[in-house]
Amino acid sequence: MVLGRPFRSDRLAHTLLPKRIALPVFASDALSSVAYAPEEIFLVLSVAGLTAYSMAPWIGLAVAVVMLIVIASYRQNVYAYPSGGGDYEVVSTNLGPTAGLTVAAALLVDYVLTVAVSVAAAMSNIGSVVPTVNHHKVAFAVAAILLLAALNMRGIRESGRAFAVPTYAFLVGMFVMLGWGFIQIYAFDTPLRAPSADFEMQPEHGEILGLALVFLVARAFSSGSAALTGVEAISNGVPAFRKPKSRNAAVTLAMVGALSVTMFIGIIVLARRTGVQIVEQPAEQLIGAPADYHQKTLIAQLAEAVFGDFSAGVYVIAVVTALILVLAANTAFNGFPVLGSILAQDRYLPRQLHTRGDRLTFSNGILFVALAAMAFIWAFDAEVTVLNQLYVVGVFVSFTLSQLGMVRHWTRLLRTETDSAMRARMRRSRVINAIGCACTATVFVVVVVSKFLAGAWIAILAMAALYGLMKLIRRHYETIARELDLQAGDDDMVLPSRNHAIVLVSNLHLPTRRALAYARATRPDVLEAITVSVDDAETRALVHKWQDSDISVPLKVIASPYREITRPVLDYVKRVTKESPRTVVTVFIPEYVVGHWWEQLLHNQSALRLKGRLLFEPNVMVTSVPWQLNSSARLRSQPPRPEPGDTRRGFLD
Amino acid sequence: MVLGRPFRSDRLAHTLLPKRIALPVFASDALSSVAYAPEEIFLVLSVAGLTAYSMAPWIGLAVAVVMLIVIASYRQNVYAYPSGGGDYEVVSTNLGPTAGLTVAAALLVDYVLTVAVSVAAAMSNIGSVVPTVNHHKVAFAVAAILLLAALNMRGIRESGRAFAVPTYAFLVGMFVMLGWGFIQIYAFDTPLRAPSADFEMQPEHGEILGLALVFLVARAFSSGSAALTGVEAISNGVPAFRKPKSRNAAVTLAMVGALSVTMFIGIIVLARRTGVQIVEQPAEQLIGAPADYHQKTLIAQLAEAVFGDFSAGVYVIAVVTALILVLAANTAFNGFPVLGSILAQDRYLPRQLHTRGDRLTFSNGILFVALAAMAFIWAFDAEVTVLNQLYVVGVFVSFTLSQLGMVRHWTRLLRTETDSAMRARMRRSRVINAIGCACTATVFVVVVVSKFLAGAWIAILAMAALYGLMKLIRRHYETIARELDLQAGDDDMVLPSRNHAIVLVSNLHLPTRRALAYARATRPDVLEAITVSVDDAETRALVHKWQDSDISVPLKVIASPYREITRPVLDYVKRVTKESPRTVVTVFIPEYVVGHWWEQLLHNQSALRLKGRLLFEPNVMVTSVPWQLNSSARLRSQPPRPEPGDTRRGFLD
Repeated sequence: MVLGRPFRSDRLAHTLLPKRIALPVFASDALSSVAYAPEEIFLVLSVAGLTAYSMAPWIGLAVAVVMLIVIASYRQNVYAYPSGGGDYEVVSTNLGPTAGLTVAAALLVDYVLTVAVSVAAAMSNIGSVVPTVNHHKVAFAVAAILLLAALNMRGIRESGRAFAVPTYAFLVGMFVMLGWGFIQIYAFDTPLRAPSADFEMQPEHGEILGLALVFLVARAFSSGSAALTGVEAISNGVPAFRKPKSRNAAVTLAMVGALSVTMFIGIIVLARRTGVQIVEQPAEQLIGAPADYHQKTLIAQLAEAVFGDFSAGVYVIAVVTALILVLAANTAFNGFPVLGSILAQDRYLPRQLHTRGDRLTFSNGILFVALAAMAFIWAFDAEVTVLNQLYVVGVFVSFTLSQLGMVRHWTRLLRTETDSAMRARMRRSRVINAIGCACTATVFVVVVVSKFLAGAWIAILAMAALYGLMKLIRRHYETIARELDLQAGDDDMVLPSRNHAIVLVSNLHLPTRRALAYARATRPDVLEAITVSVDDAETRALVHKWQDSDISVPLKVIASPYREITRPVLDYVKRVTKESPRTVVTVFIPEYVVGHWWEQLLHNQSALRLKGRLLFEPNVMVTSVPWQLNSSARLRSQPPRPEPGDTRRGFLD
Repeated sequence: MVLGRPFRSDRLAHTLLPKRIALPVFASDALSSVAYAPEEIFLVLSVAGLTAYSMAPWIGLAVAVVMLIVIASYRQNVYAYPSGGGDYEVVSTNLGPTAGLTVAAALLVDYVLTVAVSVAAAMSNIGSVVPTVNHHKVAFAVAAILLLAALNMRGIRESGRAFAVPTYAFLVGMFVMLGWGFIQIYAFDTPLRAPSADFEMQPEHGEILGLALVFLVARAFSSGSAALTGVEAISNGVPAFRKPKSRNAAVTLAMVGALSVTMFIGIIVLARRTGVQIVEQPAEQLIGAPADYHQKTLIAQLAEAVFGDFSAGVYVIAVVTALILVLAANTAFNGFPVLGSILAQDRYLPRQLHTRGDRLTFSNGILFVALAAMAFIWAFDAEVTVLNQLYVVGVFVSFTLSQLGMVRHWTRLLRTETDSAMRARMRRSRVINAIGCACTATVFVVVVVSKFLAGAWIAILAMAALYGLMKLIRRHYETIARELDLQAGDDDMVLPSRNHAIVLVSNLHLPTRRALAYARATRPDVLEAITVSVDDAETRALVHKWQDSDISVPLKVIASPYREITRPVLDYVKRVTKESPRTVVTVFIPEYVVGHWWEQLLHNQSALRLKGRLLFEPNVMVTSVPWQLNSSARLRSQPPRPEPGDTRRGFLD
């Protein structure tokens, strides 16, 4: 036996990303969450009225601390697992398949919610400056999701710039706003006032005290934790970084952490200084507000306070915020197929998801994300606050399990490592990951307890359903593998003794002639042509033409009084296989290859059906002999379309 | 060359229908239209107020006369064209393809409108006794259409009884109602009063005189002509009748005519005697009606007048009326594929519609009818009166052209016929058809003029669109036929000199072994196995297993750094065909045959995609080597499902 040399077929140029491009490509999700996380803290606290507002900076500080710990932890992941498998790989490797699958389910649900929350938040921000969008928020959000899905299904040629421009614009916009705001307040002593600062705020249900207040603070903290979402995206992207990959990824991670924490704290402090009042029920809680008062987003209110009459500034902030949020939603459309491909490799999802370039399955994934996100948008009225209740659970499931896995990882390595410097470093990493684990586990418990009834149960239910589905898929593949792995030696392995070739004929034209020539080239023991007589006159004409031609293959006519094609052919083939069981029957079907989908509707349908049914017959092979119609040339020369997520895997123009 | 003897494959028992079953199977559409046609006359006349009502019996009489003429005309069709081709066959044969296609387009639009009008009328009748249905008429109508479509797509086992029970129940119900009503009035001198008789009716826009009144009468007549719809159904069904087919069909036609005219006239007269007042705008036109007055259907009002306190009678009438109307809608679901198959034979519709048993295309037809009917229902609020404006145009297009065709038919036959008795009979038939043609042409003009702006233009537009589409399909088939009919002798006809077989391998399991054995049985000049290395570890394991096995076929590994399957294989095959252009490459693809649709999602997807792409390569054959998984046994033994329209083609249990 000779093994041929590997035959390579490289067409895609793999370009590695410099940090300045990797940051926007991977961090838009993480950075964009500061657009809604601080607002959520204020919204939750508003239930208890103005006094509770004073706790906001402390809650913000707690979130920031957790964020820094998580960032520090993920820097360890990036060094330990440079393959980009992300949390799923870390957890599967260290905690086993059950924990791994739990993380996978959590991440999949998260992708859907990322789309829903980000698009809803984007529409709220646009709605703050364009009232029409605010009045039809659900419709605009659904339209945005449809547009994103269409772009991704169609295959947008992604470029680093497409990510870089909105991300850097957002960063610049936010820092200009915060910087100019603080300069006015602290350097020029100009007291900035948000438009909502003059209303009198009332608690929603009277005064809140004791345990209820603790619970409220916990909820505010949980809601603010939404700022942490997206951090793990960078650990999935390590392979796309320039060398030294892990180091560059770790540096980028640190940069994202620094930027996020600065913006997050900055927004909260500025909100306190400008007196922004943002509540769950503006109509009831804000005394003094006009009847048609429309509560703008926190970012928009800050922009108004800072830029005042300079309304272009307010518009720019709203637009760049919306843009980075849409980019964050797009992240999920890209991330879903990547995670899907890894899960498919482990047979938790349909096998073909594993291979690149199967547009159909990619499209199905995108369609799934889009439909699910639209369902959430529709069910919760595109309200960021409500969607946020579902959002954070999944993130912290994967944070906690991932950090636990990392602790195990270091413990395992420490067992064999002897170099003392390395051991010291591993110990340090283990301590960081252990702190990360303890911290995220605590937050997870706080999140589940404080948000369970408010919506987290829906996310948990969805995760459980996905978990069950993937388990079932895996079990199915295992069953099939066992079925196919039987020992050889039974009937099926006996070499067939005869090859009986049947060419299916509907008309005596070029495709039929080619099929006959090809069939003859396989040198079968028997070669015959058969035609199904659906229409008497046509059949008679065909037989005459056949007799007048130079074809020496006999033509059999199969009667079909009820104008069927499939069944008569099937019966005939069955009769042949029954007569000589060691014969393999090869059915040659001339097929038209067409260039437009609508042509496919007009041709081949009977052949397709027949092929499908013939496959059920044992000892039958079905051979398509294609005839390329002129219109098919169109498709033959078409270049492959780009895949969603190309950029984040380092495929660039 | 030897022509094999025809091989028969008969499974369906073809049972011919006795007249008592044929009547309900074919005439439900024709009979059911008396449920709404008389009401439409009153509704249109109501615009001019009570005085115009007195014209109703005369208009009814005119409609009845036209109906009898049409029935007499179609009796000639039935004798002349016993093949069941119906109007399309008659017109195509005698007036050429353009006129034929016009009739076809008219009939297709008619099928859709039959569903819409019948279901809307059914819901109005049910709504007369169940107010909930009346309040959500559109929703209930859509649900009914969906149910009908689902039943037809799933394949209901039709039986004569399913048609007979509702049809005869309707006939009995109507004759009992009319009979008991007239007995009370004329024999017992009991004056029957409809509930709406006591209101004072006002004309809608003041008094109507002169030309406007003529126009109104014309519209009332056009609307009443809806009673004629469905007559041509019997002429399509001649082959399903018992012998003498034509005679029995003609007798059935006469029976349908007698029954329809009797009921039609009976309803109108009884309506006048009981003083039913039915108007287009009940809230404005009926003085004295309560604020929440709900105008019931004419049939329901008559039932109330006749049965009075015996409310069970009212319910029964409403239910049997609704049932026969639903049955009439079902007629369209059955008739559409039958006409479609004839049009497909002439290449005006996708070719595969011609063959029976292609469930997929049948389903598409049903889906098309259902969606279009639902669109009409939704657009016109399930209002029978409005839908009726669109309905009658198509019917009279086919009536007129069909009768004109028949006149031509007799003229042609008379040219060669010498027997004088036959000549006399033909002349008589020609006179009947000529009268029919003149009569229906007149009605057609009246219908178009009086209804054009009220909605008929929509139906005409739809017909034109269908006509254009079918023309385009036909032209496409002709282009392809020319392309395939080139003279032999060019490259493609040269017998390939070598057969290079490639077996696609993903794993060394039973399906692969079978594929190798089968490939060897075709005795190719070159036989090799190739595998695409998507995952390094897996590929290495496969290569080792291969080396350890007893397989002597060399295994080539194709590198695929970007985890693609299709492109590397395609490139490899292209290289082989380029190296030796006279070689035909046969790619053997082991395929799993599964028993559930969801299993199909989990298997074969990559293979399917690859097959699709390989077909575009010249000189390549693609052979599927099926491996029947255990689950596939489920499907192999499944009996074929019944087709919609089985009964009307004479397939009975």
